[in-house]
Amino acid sequence: MATHRLGNLTYIASGLADRASLRFAIPATHLCAVQNGPGKKIQTRSKVLTIDSMNPHVKKIEYAVRGPIVIRAGELEKELKQGAKKNYNSILRANIGDCHATGQEPLTFLRQVLALCLYPKLLEDSSFPDDAKQRASRFLSACGGNSIGAYSDSAGVSVVREDVAKYISERDGIPASPENIYMGTGASEGIRNVMKLLMTSQSGNGRAGVMIPIPQYPLYTATIAEYDAYAINYYLDESANWSLSLDELKRAITEAKPHCKPRAICVINPGNPTGQVLTRKNIEDIIKFAKEENLFIMADEVYQHNVYAEGSEFHSFKKVLMEMGPPYSELELASFMSTSKGYMGECGLRGGYVELINVEPDVRAQFQKALSAKLCSAVTGQAAMNVVVNPPKPGEPSYELFQKQKNTVLGQLKEKGKMTSEVFNSIDGISCNPVQGSMYAFPKIDIPKKAVEAAKAQGVAADAFYCFNLLEETGMCVVPGSGFGQKEGTWHFRTTILPPMEQLGEMLSHFGKFHSKFLEKYS
Amino acid sequence: MATHRLGNLTYIASGLADRASLRFAIPATHLCAVQNGPGKKIQTRSKVLTIDSMNPHVKKIEYAVRGPIVIRAGELEKELKQGAKKNYNSILRANIGDCHATGQEPLTFLRQVLALCLYPKLLEDSSFPDDAKQRASRFLSACGGNSIGAYSDSAGVSVVREDVAKYISERDGIPASPENIYMGTGASEGIRNVMKLLMTSQSGNGRAGVMIPIPQYPLYTATIAEYDAYAINYYLDESANWSLSLDELKRAITEAKPHCKPRAICVINPGNPTGQVLTRKNIEDIIKFAKEENLFIMADEVYQHNVYAEGSEFHSFKKVLMEMGPPYSELELASFMSTSKGYMGECGLRGGYVELINVEPDVRAQFQKALSAKLCSAVTGQAAMNVVVNPPKPGEPSYELFQKQKNTVLGQLKEKGKMTSEVFNSIDGISCNPVQGSMYAFPKIDIPKKAVEAAKAQGVAADAFYCFNLLEETGMCVVPGSGFGQKEGTWHFRTTILPPMEQLGEMLSHFGKFHSKFLEKYS
Repeated sequence: MATHRLGNLTYIASGLADRASLRFAIPATHLCAVQNGPGKKIQTRSKVLTIDSMNPHVKKIEYAVRGPIVIRAGELEKELKQGAKKNYNSILRANIGDCHATGQEPLTFLRQVLALCLYPKLLEDSSFPDDAKQRASRFLSACGGNSIGAYSDSAGVSVVREDVAKYISERDGIPASPENIYMGTGASEGIRNVMKLLMTSQSGNGRAGVMIPIPQYPLYTATIAEYDAYAINYYLDESANWSLSLDELKRAITEAKPHCKPRAICVINPGNPTGQVLTRKNIEDIIKFAKEENLFIMADEVYQHNVYAEGSEFHSFKKVLMEMGPPYSELELASFMSTSKGYMGECGLRGGYVELINVEPDVRAQFQKALSAKLCSAVTGQAAMNVVVNPPKPGEPSYELFQKQKNTVLGQLKEKGKMTSEVFNSIDGISCNPVQGSMYAFPKIDIPKKAVEAAKAQGVAADAFYCFNLLEETGMCVVPGSGFGQKEGTWHFRTTILPPMEQLGEMLSHFGKFHSKFLEKYS
Repeated sequence: MATHRLGNLTYIASGLADRASLRFAIPATHLCAVQNGPGKKIQTRSKVLTIDSMNPHVKKIEYAVRGPIVIRAGELEKELKQGAKKNYNSILRANIGDCHATGQEPLTFLRQVLALCLYPKLLEDSSFPDDAKQRASRFLSACGGNSIGAYSDSAGVSVVREDVAKYISERDGIPASPENIYMGTGASEGIRNVMKLLMTSQSGNGRAGVMIPIPQYPLYTATIAEYDAYAINYYLDESANWSLSLDELKRAITEAKPHCKPRAICVINPGNPTGQVLTRKNIEDIIKFAKEENLFIMADEVYQHNVYAEGSEFHSFKKVLMEMGPPYSELELASFMSTSKGYMGECGLRGGYVELINVEPDVRAQFQKALSAKLCSAVTGQAAMNVVVNPPKPGEPSYELFQKQKNTVLGQLKEKGKMTSEVFNSIDGISCNPVQGSMYAFPKIDIPKKAVEAAKAQGVAADAFYCFNLLEETGMCVVPGSGFGQKEGTWHFRTTILPPMEQLGEMLSHFGKFHSKFLEKYS
């Protein structure tokens, strides 16, 4: 990995390279909040915790989705509030899949159930529909002292785990057991917890190797860094709609074997940041590969409701694995789900679950024990998940409104995804795969040599340079591809498709203008 | 440490010894859910995760508060439901500080604010008081898209951090800054996050040493095990109301220095499981000691509202440290707070914060970066904390009810604490320090030699044996002292003082009978 120092700044000579440094490859003025380099003098006499003495693994954590560009966006917002004159009046935050923050309305039914759970006196209020009251009463009856303020069992409230199992059974046509369901504070916590089980506690080439897609959602590299594990990067094929090839998986693991003990393969489907939906054939290939290499499968399926493209369909790893029969149906699998995505977008409630499949009972007991030291996940998030897996049924009073709200959100996302890729593809020097699912587009941008050099001179990755310029000029906040990983020599960015149609349209029209100006300047 | 194997079971010959095994020192029938010993055959062909191949640090985690006795309590509850005949009709769960589960009513105002935040249509409902509406509106105005369902900033919603800082400033008479406040999913998460910063990533005697009180709340040993750090046990002085002596701190760190790199001292005040409230002198001693030994102070102050004893007063570490002036006022300190305790008891909402004091800005930036990979803590928990730090003021419509509810809870806890220690002290062979604060009593029990031997024969610690017997005979679920640590050769248990007065009184009366029967049987 070709990492060089240029003054106080770190830049990466190669396209992909060490993402650990890439996040810090930004102008010095933006560095203050995240810098771990040699830039700052340690003025302490005898502080216990200094940048040099703190946990080095924490220093290696990266999370571009809330990285320096987003910090700069916050500064610009403050400047605008203080009356600064810019080409724009507000910052468009397309950096994070934060649905409500970008204008999506919460689902009425979900919020009614939560209000009832929190303030049960409302159960007497005739303006609340009966099905919401029924859901709230059922949930509360399974809470200690009938209160959402009691700790739940470490794995979650019993009825929620039951309803999750029922939801999965109906989704897949394959039985699921409440015993295998563990509620978590968002899906992220479950992913960290499962990955933690897989660690070896050894260093060097005894370290656990975890296969991750490139581009990836940076939670994975962040967790791998924190646990001092080894990231085995496998590249998604941009030329084939970000699909996954068996040859590439084999290449990746073969190259990694001298450096680690491969333990798991992570798959994000539908894809983040890449927006693809894996075909059944693709999933079968991954499962066969996992069998061959004896890998634990971690399936990030939080976007399972977010499938838009004609001909695309969500296939859960569990369903495919089970339908493949033995020996594949005996593979260990963890599937993750969240209340934050789909049509709910309830990010702040931090609801999530993991289903553990084919995991040894004594390992599950250890998992549960480790959870118990955290007491329980947010019970409000559990209540939200309960609604997601047990929504109003036909004939219930809230059914029609719920369906309408759900279909509106998903319908708009479909339209916005289509518009986004079309607009990007209409711009010279930008190409974008169709947004088959999830909430993101990940277009490729041709960055002129002169701009790459200008970026290098400033000590930043070329796509970070591009995104910083985009932000300063247009107020659009997107995340550079280097924050997710990309093939050497290519440059991308991730944008959400969440802003309201009109705002998204305006953003995209600005984009074309910005891009041609940028090309002109650096041609 | 004298750990021996007896068939499938582990027991500890010494009184304190390795708590890592103690949690598993229970009858084989109760072992299924937590065993990590050699008892189970691994029947897998090629599972990735087996009890032998999983992360060994996770295996070492222990959390007696939800350990095997509590699992057995759950089984008994099921048996009772199925009509089994016992000496009791229900299980009294005095194992965990779960206020609402044991009958405490939620605060009306807090729940009103939360219901308003979740379902803002209620802002038009005239039955909700104006001050609740004002709090909810203010909170929502600081949320993305005015929704509690949006991610907050990684460190928390701005107005909550501001209000926390104001609360601390008023509590201590010393300024606090919102910048130093980080919201978390309960206090536990903050404790884990801060401890993580302190890790060295080295093994052997390069490991981080963390001083913890014995007895301790097992979150500390669980986290130390998970991070593969070194626990430096310092013993609280039971004969002096569980106070802390400088000599003991010095002994502990001196003995530990060959084995680790001491980095931090954890203090729980008011005490858990011991119920003491540290004097100002005690706190000053700890601060001087931390200065001398260059330790980071972690102050677990989640019971700051729970002080009952005449003459006892809560002194925050921050206030004492600041008032001591330089060089003490420059020490690094983290103070933790929760919505789960106090008079609120909102455990399920998982609200908490940490205030970082005198921590280097670049270390704080790293802390914030690590938080950002977790996106944010439960925003509902943040809203709950907002009420705790900004309760109704005199003259506001909810003030009187709020005060009444608060004072009722705290008044009852005071009475129950007094009754609990008095009853225990009236029983031969049990002695109990006064419950000065928090929510627990930690009585010492004399266990006859024959019972110790009977326990040993069953491969369990003597106090676990005692508590298992108590549970089976009376339906009372308490946690053995070995789950918290205790001086060699002494035996204890922790009970909460939370059950309603009448139920607690009944429990305590059963206790005397059980204890004399037990003594008789093993005398």
